[in-house]
Amino acid sequence: MLFENHTFTTSRCMEFVDVTDDVVSTLDRSGIANGMALVYSPHTTCSIVINERETGFIRDFGDLVQSLVPENQPYRHDDMTLRTENLEDDDHDVPNGHAHCKQGLIASASQAIPIVDGTLQLGRWQRVFLLELDRARERRVLIQVLGE
Amino acid sequence: MLFENHTFTTSRCMEFVDVTDDVVSTLDRSGIANGMALVYSPHTTCSIVINERETGFIRDFGDLVQSLVPENQPYRHDDMTLRTENLEDDDHDVPNGHAHCKQGLIASASQAIPIVDGTLQLGRWQRVFLLELDRARERRVLIQVLGE
Amino acid sequence: MLFENHTFTTSRCMEFVDVTDDVVSTLDRSGIANGMALVYSPHTTCSIVINERETGFIRDFGDLVQSLVPENQPYRHDDMTLRTENLEDDDHDVPNGHAHCKQGLIASASQAIPIVDGTLQLGRWQRVFLLELDRARERRVLIQVLGE
Repeated sequence: MLFENHTFTTSRCMEFVDVTDDVVSTLDRSGIANGMALVYSPHTTCSIVINERETGFIRDFGDLVQSLVPENQPYRHDDMTLRTENLEDDDHDVPNGHAHCKQGLIASASQAIPIVDGTLQLGRWQRVFLLELDRARERRVLIQVLGE
Repeated sequence: MLFENHTFTTSRCMEFVDVTDDVVSTLDRSGIANGMALVYSPHTTCSIVINERETGFIRDFGDLVQSLVPENQPYRHDDMTLRTENLEDDDHDVPNGHAHCKQGLIASASQAIPIVDGTLQLGRWQRVFLLELDRARERRVLIQVLGE
Repeated sequence: MLFENHTFTTSRCMEFVDVTDDVVSTLDRSGIANGMALVYSPHTTCSIVINERETGFIRDFGDLVQSLVPENQPYRHDDMTLRTENLEDDDHDVPNGHAHCKQGLIASASQAIPIVDGTLQLGRWQRVFLLELDRARERRVLIQVLGE
């Protein structure tokens, strides 16, 4: 088993940060031939997604998610006259109720990818992304390689 | 490997049942130091989700999912003049086509979480939930700890 | 560990191809008693989903996804006056920006299912599907069984 913590700085909501090379380099360091890679976000307002790296799609998907879960509408999570829980988190300063709802809808804190003969079994057009659902922030991606 | 079957009683659609302590206690009993926890719902109208435990968000997300997939509209799954399959399930009595569609959209029958040095690698604000998408029901969550 | 590549021909957008028997037969061949099955799509316009095999639900869910992410609207991914990346893929001929967005929303390139005492721990009504989000195409499903 090899476990690594990779750090990234995101720049905006709906940014796709390509972490594929990070996953491949962790796999290479692990010496594991057969097993799986688990790519995990420890954040409640990010998702790990697998899709094509193509600017048009990335903008299309940003528009879709922003239309289904708009930023500029009221969320109870952001209403400090109602809220009593987790007040030490940073949501005071910058409301992010929309980002929690986006994460809930996409619902992918992680992705698992098979490893066979030392190779990550991504399809030809597949790339692994950290998807930022909040604003520019410091983020971590946990990469774990399990197997023999 | 340790595998456990935990049971819960839910009370309503869009209820978040926090199962984090169940996952941690299974991990503690397993003696496994490095590996992963697989938290699995064997139900077609529940999801396993990871997000923040904050009442405002939970209500926001309930409203979002109910607006995208309303309960009070017709579903073919509930039309007993059309339906010929799986008639022994309990959908006769209480229509739940909306709940199947909610599960399809969220699409998370399970969540996998890394374990490192005996610790579940949840982020600071992350909790693991069984999300009820149908009505008050008896439910099970399968918790499996894999590794060394 | 046993890894297999299963091939399928799909017939239309929102088709559910039941791959449950493929997963069970791979498990039987593996000789593995305790572990997990990872069912993985190497395609950017398919998802792996777990739900009930019932025609009404499958049509309901098709309608839902088509209404949230319509086929007949413009996508930047399909605009060859803008696009500069991955031009060798087959999206020239048949626009499929909608299919990438559908996959992004459902966000399930894989499903992981526990194996206990040689049995896949699917619930009574659960079946595993390859969900086609593009058009009729040749597709692969990667089935990996990990454990002891």
